[in-house]
Parts: sequence; structure tokens; C-alpha cells
Amino acid sequence: MSLAKAHILFRQLGLRHMCVVPTSQEKGDAMDAHNDESNDVENGELEGTGEEELFSSGLSERTISIRQPLLRHRSNTSSQIAIVGANICPIESLDYEYLKAFLAFAGCNIGLATAAGALCAYIAPAAAGSGIPEVKAYLNGVDAPSILAPSTLFVKIFGSILGVSGGFVIGKEGPMVHTGACIANLLGQGGSYKYGLTWSWLRYFKNDRDRRDLVTCGAAAGVAAAFRAPVGGVLFALEEAASWWRSALLWRTFFTTAVVAMVLRGFIQYCSTGNCGLFGKGGLIIYDVSSAEATYSGYDLLAVIFLGVAGGVLGSLYNYFVDKVVRIYGFINEKGPSFRVLLVILISILTTCCAFGLPWIARCTPCSKDHNEKCPTVGESGNYRIFQCQAGYYNDLASLFLNTNDDAIRNLFSTHTTGVFKISSLLIFFMTICGLGILTYGIAVPAGLFIPVILAGAVYGRLVGRLFGSMSTLDTGLFSLLGAASFLGGTMRMTVSLCVILLELTNDLLLLPLVMLVLLISKTVADIFNKGVYDQIVKLKGLPFMEAHPEPYMKHLMAGDVVSGPLIKFSGVEKVETIVHALQGTTHNGFPVISEPPFTDAPELCGLVLRSHLLVLLKAKCFSKERVLLGGNVLKKFSPFDFAKRGSGKELKLKDITIEKEEMEMYIDLHPITNTSPYTVVETMSLAKAQILFRELGLRHMCVVPKSQERPPIVGILTRHDFMPEHILGLYPKTKGNK
Amino acid sequence: MSLAKAHILFRQLGLRHMCVVPTSQEKGDAMDAHNDESNDVENGELEGTGEEELFSSGLSERTISIRQPLLRHRSNTSSQIAIVGANICPIESLDYEYLKAFLAFAGCNIGLATAAGALCAYIAPAAAGSGIPEVKAYLNGVDAPSILAPSTLFVKIFGSILGVSGGFVIGKEGPMVHTGACIANLLGQGGSYKYGLTWSWLRYFKNDRDRRDLVTCGAAAGVAAAFRAPVGGVLFALEEAASWWRSALLWRTFFTTAVVAMVLRGFIQYCSTGNCGLFGKGGLIIYDVSSAEATYSGYDLLAVIFLGVAGGVLGSLYNYFVDKVVRIYGFINEKGPSFRVLLVILISILTTCCAFGLPWIARCTPCSKDHNEKCPTVGESGNYRIFQCQAGYYNDLASLFLNTNDDAIRNLFSTHTTGVFKISSLLIFFMTICGLGILTYGIAVPAGLFIPVILAGAVYGRLVGRLFGSMSTLDTGLFSLLGAASFLGGTMRMTVSLCVILLELTNDLLLLPLVMLVLLISKTVADIFNKGVYDQIVKLKGLPFMEAHPEPYMKHLMAGDVVSGPLIKFSGVEKVETIVHALQGTTHNGFPVISEPPFTDAPELCGLVLRSHLLVLLKAKCFSKERVLLGGNVLKKFSPFDFAKRGSGKELKLKDITIEKEEMEMYIDLHPITNTSPYTVVETMSLAKAQILFRELGLRHMCVVPKSQERPPIVGILTRHDFMPEHILGLYPKTKGNK
Repeated sequence: MSLAKAHILFRQLGLRHMCVVPTSQEKGDAMDAHNDESNDVENGELEGTGEEELFSSGLSERTISIRQPLLRHRSNTSSQIAIVGANICPIESLDYEYLKAFLAFAGCNIGLATAAGALCAYIAPAAAGSGIPEVKAYLNGVDAPSILAPSTLFVKIFGSILGVSGGFVIGKEGPMVHTGACIANLLGQGGSYKYGLTWSWLRYFKNDRDRRDLVTCGAAAGVAAAFRAPVGGVLFALEEAASWWRSALLWRTFFTTAVVAMVLRGFIQYCSTGNCGLFGKGGLIIYDVSSAEATYSGYDLLAVIFLGVAGGVLGSLYNYFVDKVVRIYGFINEKGPSFRVLLVILISILTTCCAFGLPWIARCTPCSKDHNEKCPTVGESGNYRIFQCQAGYYNDLASLFLNTNDDAIRNLFSTHTTGVFKISSLLIFFMTICGLGILTYGIAVPAGLFIPVILAGAVYGRLVGRLFGSMSTLDTGLFSLLGAASFLGGTMRMTVSLCVILLELTNDLLLLPLVMLVLLISKTVADIFNKGVYDQIVKLKGLPFMEAHPEPYMKHLMAGDVVSGPLIKFSGVEKVETIVHALQGTTHNGFPVISEPPFTDAPELCGLVLRSHLLVLLKAKCFSKERVLLGGNVLKKFSPFDFAKRGSGKELKLKDITIEKEEMEMYIDLHPITNTSPYTVVETMSLAKAQILFRELGLRHMCVVPKSQERPPIVGILTRHDFMPEHILGLYPKTKGNK
Repeated sequence: MSLAKAHILFRQLGLRHMCVVPTSQEKGDAMDAHNDESNDVENGELEGTGEEELFSSGLSERTISIRQPLLRHRSNTSSQIAIVGANICPIESLDYEYLKAFLAFAGCNIGLATAAGALCAYIAPAAAGSGIPEVKAYLNGVDAPSILAPSTLFVKIFGSILGVSGGFVIGKEGPMVHTGACIANLLGQGGSYKYGLTWSWLRYFKNDRDRRDLVTCGAAAGVAAAFRAPVGGVLFALEEAASWWRSALLWRTFFTTAVVAMVLRGFIQYCSTGNCGLFGKGGLIIYDVSSAEATYSGYDLLAVIFLGVAGGVLGSLYNYFVDKVVRIYGFINEKGPSFRVLLVILISILTTCCAFGLPWIARCTPCSKDHNEKCPTVGESGNYRIFQCQAGYYNDLASLFLNTNDDAIRNLFSTHTTGVFKISSLLIFFMTICGLGILTYGIAVPAGLFIPVILAGAVYGRLVGRLFGSMSTLDTGLFSLLGAASFLGGTMRMTVSLCVILLELTNDLLLLPLVMLVLLISKTVADIFNKGVYDQIVKLKGLPFMEAHPEPYMKHLMAGDVVSGPLIKFSGVEKVETIVHALQGTTHNGFPVISEPPFTDAPELCGLVLRSHLLVLLKAKCFSKERVLLGGNVLKKFSPFDFAKRGSGKELKLKDITIEKEEMEMYIDLHPITNTSPYTVVETMSLAKAQILFRELGLRHMCVVPKSQERPPIVGILTRHDFMPEHILGLYPKTKGNK
């Protein structure tokens, strides 16, 4: 039998299909790239229905099926044979068929995984992982290069497609948020000159605040597209992604997600005729559970509280192990791209073995006649996979493993199906998914955390539902939903946004009180043990994230205490040489300007000048031979957009500017480009209060001025890094113990 | 016929019933106080079913019914008679019956209205109106007395019950938000000593921030209870009520509304047996429209865009007229409480006349047999009221007018009922409701704006639906919902919160994209013309509300420019007499403290001391005979809660402290109670940036320090009032023209 045939065979076992590219920041619609063969399979089945009683359906070459037992009972032949494909094989070769199927399955998975890993490891390592921590850090003010670069965008899209197709236990939601943010950033920096994609109106976004707003909208659009949850997207951006929030931003993100919803709705309507494959499956509501009656008693409430508490504990454990595993992977990943790819391949093999091997453990379950769904099924979807079972039986573990993650979640959430999954199967699946989910995050593949967590939570919820089942009036499917909520609450620690996302995923408003309760309990319980998973990853990546609240020991320090390093300051009219040397010698982005006699009576703080603005002035060579004020006329040479913030990688650099030796001796008047209203704090100001000022106003530089009047007019400049616990505890190692 | 009988007669015509008190801040559940007679009426109807064919139902004394034509065709009698109640009356008396019904209706309405108006005018004028603007101002930092006082709470609850029962076109939602905030405030100030309701653990809330958080939660609980929309409540608090937002606040409000939802759910379940009257009607979702299919085409989209644009224009017009009317009422209300009550009575008479008089205009509509609802109906609810029509006919205008506002909205939202309301009737109802809604807001009755706006919007939407009806695939009921959304967007200018509230009211997730679109369009269109209705009212009330964004002309001013009035400052160790005089002579709440020689080398700003803390020190008489530093030992006399913020009305007052003459000559060391880290700005700081600092950090006082070093260490103190446009434009009348 050819590999192609084996491929078809394994496809019948159920390949994970996929996946998801937001085509533009505002569309961001999920496109399930899916093989068209599903229709062919259907036809094949119909063709083959006349053959024999036991083999009543499709055995044409296209639709090799193992839905029927492969053993054919022919009492009048000397040896038992089986029909595999169109061939009648002696029974001894059967093991080889399964082996071939496994090899094809593993081959495809490993091939896709290798491609994803190679893309990620060699082109854009920043694209690995969820991407939500990076977006969160960017929106906090961390302007790290490559977080939102076009190469990251490219790898994020295709790496995510390859990774999800490769059968990993990963989601597409996180990568879609990152994708949305990348596209927004690309628009925000005026398109890409490199690829010839620019529009002049985009220049209005060339400042920090508007670009940040745009990226927030992009993140919201990502969630809105991933979960088809427009309101959930807005709330996600508000609760998890953004560090600052303005009322204008609220309706802007709302507008973005409204456009996403309209476009999504349009595509779903267009595709309802069936000409887009699996896209639009499930409509706007992906996992509809509204058919179940949401009645519950006081007893159910107790069960739900237990669910929440245990979910919180498990969620924090999940976070703990993710943290450990990512740390260990860090050592491996440091060794070079080839090691990263190797790690990806290793995990891919492990995943494949689990998915193909574990269903053999499960006993076959007889099909119940109560359900109106087909049982057993072959092909891409269906609740009841036959795997190795006889006709009339199905393998519940195979139904979960050999399915897309989306379909597995849908099966777990499905209501009125209490007995479909055996407790032992659920337990095996839960352990495997948790283990694989933890082991997969951190490898060099774009990997969302939502889907693994929802999947693990859904199984866990179903398990608890089965335990309490006899006494509970709540459907097991709803328990599954509540389990997913508790796991999400326990790992991600969001409340309102998760609640709305779950609501928009499942369309069960009547369950809202219970979902709220579970989320709150699991979040509260998990907060006792550790931080949310995204916060952990931000910290692990060493990004200088500014917390909303100052650390307690900051109350005992003063702003002047943490000022460190030599202060480089300019005079109001400064020598070019001094400026060039200062720019060469440091990496500072802001310099204080001091007005000095003869221009003022005494030295006083004039303001703050930015490196980028200095470079513009140096490049235009606005020099004067004498030490004189040039006044505002200097600025007439420039258009406002010359001072606009440029895209990453396109900043002016000192080495691109050539300054002649005689120019070095000339003077430059800094007054026109100085920000004369910098925010200042007195050096005796409590560090905690200074931090609040810095954080709430979203500053990058803060001037510290002296208390007494005899000293020079500025003590130092505080930046984001000066507020980092590492820096402060480095200066004052003993402060940690203080309360 | 006795008045009691007439009362029953008019009740059959349909009395507005009601209404809604949140029993505690965290429960805040809506309790429809409702007359138990509904069950009796049912019984009565069953009793009377044997009498005669034309009068097949209830004519017992308890259930006088005009559902059947009052004329009795008896060809063999000399004069036509009618059966009214248990009496057989000659036909001439019929007009009197209707008159009596009207008088009873009007009497009840006016009685209830007078009671509401008197409560409000004489006891707590602050309880008039919606209450949301007041809560909004409080959360912005305006600590006006009586906004959240216990008397306001009392009047708000009972005034709202009386007002809604009295048949006004007002809602209970705004008052419930205010009620929630009042209860939260009561808890926040440690309960009420006056009424003996105190708990010691409440003292932890005795500071500005926690109290503000608590009031935010209270407001969220109000919305959650009013609309049975827990997530909507959180978002309302976030988008409309709160001026500052912290992530901790997000899950706290979420917790509050989760408790509301659980309690509400519990009550609804308990009441589902029918032993609480009408409470719990509609379940958690008040107006369920999910039965309608949400399919729509490009043509529908155009209709919806038209709906949004027109809704925006109408919404801003509504705001304009509300503004004008409230201004005019302001003159009347100023003349005294009796004038206020008179105004209430006048509006009540007008409302009653409209409700009883206008249905006579409408032609009777024959009942359609397609509907499975009973037609025509009498009694409290029902879509098809008979009013003056014959059997088999109903009066559609009466169905809208002589119904509770809730039921009218439910009828308008109801799907598959396109032809039930005639276009002419809808038009009359729309004009009347808009007119009455505008005229009613501003009278001395607790009056919410949500219900009138939703009602007007729903009729408007149905009208538009009828206009586009022939070509549209969207149900008229869904048009009605979209109309309500457009009106809400046009008047209140919220986006996400309205969207979620409407979703939780109607349970139609599939309509979400359209609702989002309509809200955005109507908000955008209306924003061209004027501000949101709550912002208008805040401004009208003269509350010093700090806008999020500084006015453009502030960029051209400096912080030092708006410092006004003489600066009162204290020395680090100050004479008691100076302090007492300063406290007597001004109403300032914060005073700068200057450290002077001999304690420091040169005068420097030590910090800021609060009036309330000074009073604590004065009361404890921490004086010393000499001008010496007492140090931190002084504070050992006090517990931290002595300095906690007290409830309104319970502050320490200077007149309660007696200071002997010799004590006046003594000294007091202010250092221990001085806040040594006040936020400061340099006098040359741009006023716009100073405003951002003030607003974002939620300050009450900001110190302005001099730029040059020769001057005294403080120039002045800026408070909220110094940033008000009135103040600045008073100082610089010409700045307005600047850009």
C-alpha cells in the first residue's frame, strides 16, 4: 500500500485540521484552512452501501475506512482475511496497516512541526509563544525591538497555521492577538517602506499615544476574531492587555471589534452555502450550549463552589509548571536555533505518540440509540469515533484525541451526553492534555494558551460533573463549561472579559451567575499561590513591566535615593561637540537642559530634550557660530512630521550624520526643541508616590529636582528601569525585609 | 357605583404597576411591589363563565370588566341596557362609567404623584431626577453634601416607587443606581450612628479611595439589579460612572454584581412558584427576543444605518429639549417646595390625560387569529387591550398607554407581531412619549431616563421597521430593539455598556453586530451636536466636574497663571492662634506648611496639612509652650482611625472645640501630621499638563512651586475649582478665542 493510501487511512482516523489567519487588522477573521475531501468522503460512503452486510459502507479506494471491524468472519475460508482499502489482505498484515497509519500521521505532524519550528527559530524567535505577554509589555510602554516587527508578524501567522495543523496542544487565540497587534503597529508606523506599503494619512499615528491606541485596538480585534466575541475582545483589551485606559479608547476598540463582527458575520453568511469548507462552522457562536436548561439547586451551587476552588488550585499549579518548564526550555533554546527545532520535533513526537497510542487503552463503548447523532463515525468530525472498535461501538478516548481541539471542546461542552465519555477516559485525557499543554508552551512555535486551558478545564469540569452527577440537576455539558471557566480563571486571572468571552462562545446567558461565581472563586484561590500566567511570562522574559501598584518597600525610599549613574545635562545653548559626545557615550533617550547665565539670572531647569529631536537638529545642521539664542525661527525649517516618532528600525542614527570638525566647535540652541513642562518630583518625594505619578501618566522620563535651593537645579532623571525592583534592591539590598 | 368599584374598573383598563427597591447594596434586587389581586381576578373570571354567551367571562362584583362591548343587544326590551359590574344600567349612564374610571385613574395617579413630589421637595431635593449625574460627579471627586445622604436614600427609594406607580413616563434604573451608591456610601462612612446601624469593621473604608470604590460597586449593583444585567452593571460603572479605574476595582465590581446576580437568581427561582406576585416575571432576561431569527441582508444593513443616523439626530434633539426644560423648571423649582409639588401635580395631570385620552383616537383593530396570545385582553398584562372596542377587536394605542412601561417595551420588542400596532398609533405614541419624557425629567420626583428613552426608541424603531418592512427580512421586533439601541446611543453616548445591557436584556447574541453598529453610528452622529444627557445635567447642576481632557486654551496658560486668592500658609511649628484664625477665616481644606529657620537652613516647603487633621490635633490639645519640635511621639496619643475620614455631617468642627486664651499663645508642631510628599508642579508648567496630573492622580490639592530660587518656596495651591473653565475664563476672558 502506498504512503498516499496510508495518509488517507490516517485521515479517516481524524487529523487535526485548522486554522486561522487574520487577513487584516480590522478584519482579523478566522479562516479554517481545510481540505475539501470531506465531501468526497460523503460521496464515497454513499457509493459503497451495497456491498455486504458487515461492510455496508464505503470501501472504494478514496474512502478506506476502518469504521467497521477489519476482521471478516468467513467461516468457509481457510484463513481470516481483512479488507483494507480495496485490497483483501491476510490478517497478519493488519498490524502493518496501523503502523503505516501511525507513520503517516507522525510524519505529517513532525513535518509540519519542523516547518513551524524552523520558521520560528531561524526567522523570528520573538514569534514563539502566545504573544499576549509581549503585547501586554508593549502597551505598558516597553518598546522592545522585534516584538511587533513585520518578520514577527509573518512567522506568527504561518508558524501558527503550521503549529496548529501539526497537532500540538496549542491554541490560535494568543497568536491572533499578537497578529492583530503587529498589523496595528505596522499601520501605526506608517506602513512598511521596505515592502512598499505606505499611505501618507498613516503619518498621523506617528506618536506614542496613537500608536499605543492602535495596538490596543489590534489586540482587541485579535480576540474578537479568535473567539468571534466582539464585546469580549474589547474587555480583554481593557482588562488584560492595556495598562492605561481612556474613555476614547473604549469606543475605538469597540468600533474595531464591531467591524470585525460585521466582516465575520458577512463571511459566515457568504459561506453558509458551503463553498468555504469548514469556515463559519458553528456560526457566530462557536460552542452553543443554549439548548441545555440552566436550572440549578443549592446542591449544584456547592458542586460549583468545589469546582471553582479546585479549578483555582489546579490553575495555579498549571502556572507553576509552565513557569518551570519555560525556564528549563530557556537553557535549551539558548544553545541555538537547531536545538530549538530539535525540541519542537521531540515534543511533536511525544504529542503524536500520545494521540495515537493512548486510545488503545480505552475499552470500546456500545453506541446508545438515544442520540440522534451518527454512531460510530469516521471522517473529520463526529462525537463517536470507531478507531479500533467493532461496528456499533465507539472509542471515546479516540473521539477526544483524534479530533481538532475545537471539536474536542465542542464534544466536551455538548449537553445531554452524560454517559458518552467514560470517567477513566476523561481522566487519561485530562492528564495527557495538562502534561502536553505544559510541555508544549515554551517551544519555538507560536502557541496560544487559551485552547489548552479550555480543553483541560472542560475535561476537568466533565469529570467533576460525573462525580456529582447523580445528585446534580445541572447537565454534564454545563459542568464542562464551568470547569473551563474555573481553569481559565485559575491560570489567566481575568474576570469580566473571560465571562463575556465564555458567554459569546456558548450563548447561555442563564448560566451567567454561575460562570461569574466560578471565575471569582478560582481567581481568588489561585491568587493566593502565584501570579497570572501572562504576568509570569512577562517577568520571565525580563521585560521591564511597570506594575500598577508600587512595592511596599518603596514607601520607605525617596525619589532621590534611586537616581543612579552620572547625570548628563546640556546647557540651553550647547556646543555641538558636547552633544555629539553625549549621544555617542550614552544610550539615554532624554537629557535635561539647564538655562544658564547670561540667558537667565541663575541656573534653572529649562526642560527635557529627546535624543531623536537632537538628531533631527544635528542632521539639519542648525548651528550658529556664537553662543546666541536663535528663537523659534529655527523650527520654520522643519515640518511637524520631521519630529514625528519613526517606526522601529527607521530611527535616525548618529552614525548616519557626518559632522565636520569646524561644526563641532559651533553652538546649537536647544530651547526650540526642549519640552519646557516636564513632570518633576522633589528628591524627598516618596518613591512610591513618584512611581504612581510615573505609571499613571505613562511617562518615559521624570526629572528629580533638589529640595534645597543652593544645589544645581536638577538631581537626576528617573526612567522605567529605575523603578524596577531589581534595580532598587540592587541599590538597597536590605530593604526587602522591610514592611 | 362606589369609587372602589370604579377603581377596579380602571384597574381593568390597566394600571401601571411597579416597582423596585434594592434592599441592600449587594443585593440590590428588584422587587416588583404588586397588588395581589391579579390572582383574584383570574378566579373571578373563572367564576363568571356561565352567565351568557356574549358575556362569557367574569362579571362578578370583583371583576367588573369592559372587555366585552358594554352594549347588550336585546331586541325584545324597550331600551338598550348595559351590564356594568353586577348592575344592569341603562345605556345613558355609560359615559359616566368612563368618567368615573378616568377620575379614579387620575385620582390615584395624582395622589401618588403628589406624595412622591412632596417627599422629594420637602425632605430631600437632591433625590429628584436620575441620580446618575450626581453619582458620576461624586466619583469624579465632587464631595457635595447630601448627594449620598441617608435622607436622599430614603426619598429615592420611596419617591421612585410612588413616582413609577403614579404613571409618569420615568424609569426606575437611574434611581436604583443612585440607591446603590447611597447604600454603599452609608456603609463606607461606617454605617449610621444616628439610626444605630454601625459595624466596627466598616472603619476600614474610612478613606477617600475605598469609599469611592465602594460607591462604584454600589452603582454597578444598581444597574445589575435594574436590568438584571450583571456584566452590564460592571461596564456601566466603568464607562459612565467612574472617572478613575483600577484593575482591582474591575473584579470588585464584578464580585458585587455576581452577588447581585446570585441573589436575583435565587429570588426568581423561589418566586417561580408564583408566590411573589409579578416579581421575577421575565426571569433573568426581561425582554427575550431570541425566538426571532437574526438573518439580515445588505438591504437591512442600509435600513439599520438609516436607523442609527436618525436615532443619533433624535437623541441629540432629546438631550437639547431636556436641557431646555430642566433650565425652565429650575426657575419654578427655585420658588419653593410648594411650587415643586404643584409642578409635579401638573405633569401628572398631563400624563394621565394623555394616557386615558389618546387611545380614544385610535381605530379598533380586529384580532388576528394567527397569534396564540389571548385577544382581546383585560387585566394587568396582555398585548391586546379592548378599551372601548367591540369583542374581537382591540385598541393598539391603549395596549401601549394603559400598561406598565416594562410591558409596553416588551410588547414593542415582541417578534412576529408586525401588524399588531398601526403606524398612526405608533406615531402618536412616539410623539407623546418623547414629549412626556422631556417634560417629566426635572420635576421633583426620582426619575430615571433609561425607560423613557428605551420606550421612545422602541416605538421609533418599530416605525422605521414598518417603513422598510416590505423589503426587509428583519423582524419588526428586532427593528424595535435596534431603535432602542440607537436612541440610547444618541442620548447617553455609551457604547460597550449599552451593548452588553441590551444583550442581557434581550438574549439575542446573533444580533450583536447590528446593535454594535447602530450604537456606534448614533453615538457618533449625536456627538456632533451636543454632549451626553448625563454630562449636560452635571454641568447644569453646577457641579465642578473635572473633564478627562484639558480644554485647548489651557495649553497657552501656565499653572502659576490661575493661582488666585491670598495664600495662607503655616510654619512648621505654628502658633495656635494663627491656626485657629486661619481655620475660621477660610474654608480651605489644605494648607501648605513651610519649614523655617531655625529648624532648616532656609525656608523650604515641608508639605501639606489637612484641615481635618489640624482639628484632630487642636481637639487633643497637643500644644507646647515653646517653639520646639515634638517629633513623632505626638502621634502615639492617637490611633490611626482618629485621622480617618469621617462621614458627611460627622466631621469635627472648629466651633465644637474650645480653646482657652492662654492656649492660643502656645505652639503646635505640625510636622507629624504633614504630608511631606505632596505632588507639586513648577509655576511655569503648562496648565494643560498640570490638569492631566491633577485629574489622573485624583488629587484634591496640588502645590505650585516657584521656578526661580529666590522666591518663597510655594506660590500657591491649586484645587479642583481652579481648573474649572468658569474660573479660568473669568481670569482671562480673552483666552476663549484662542486655539
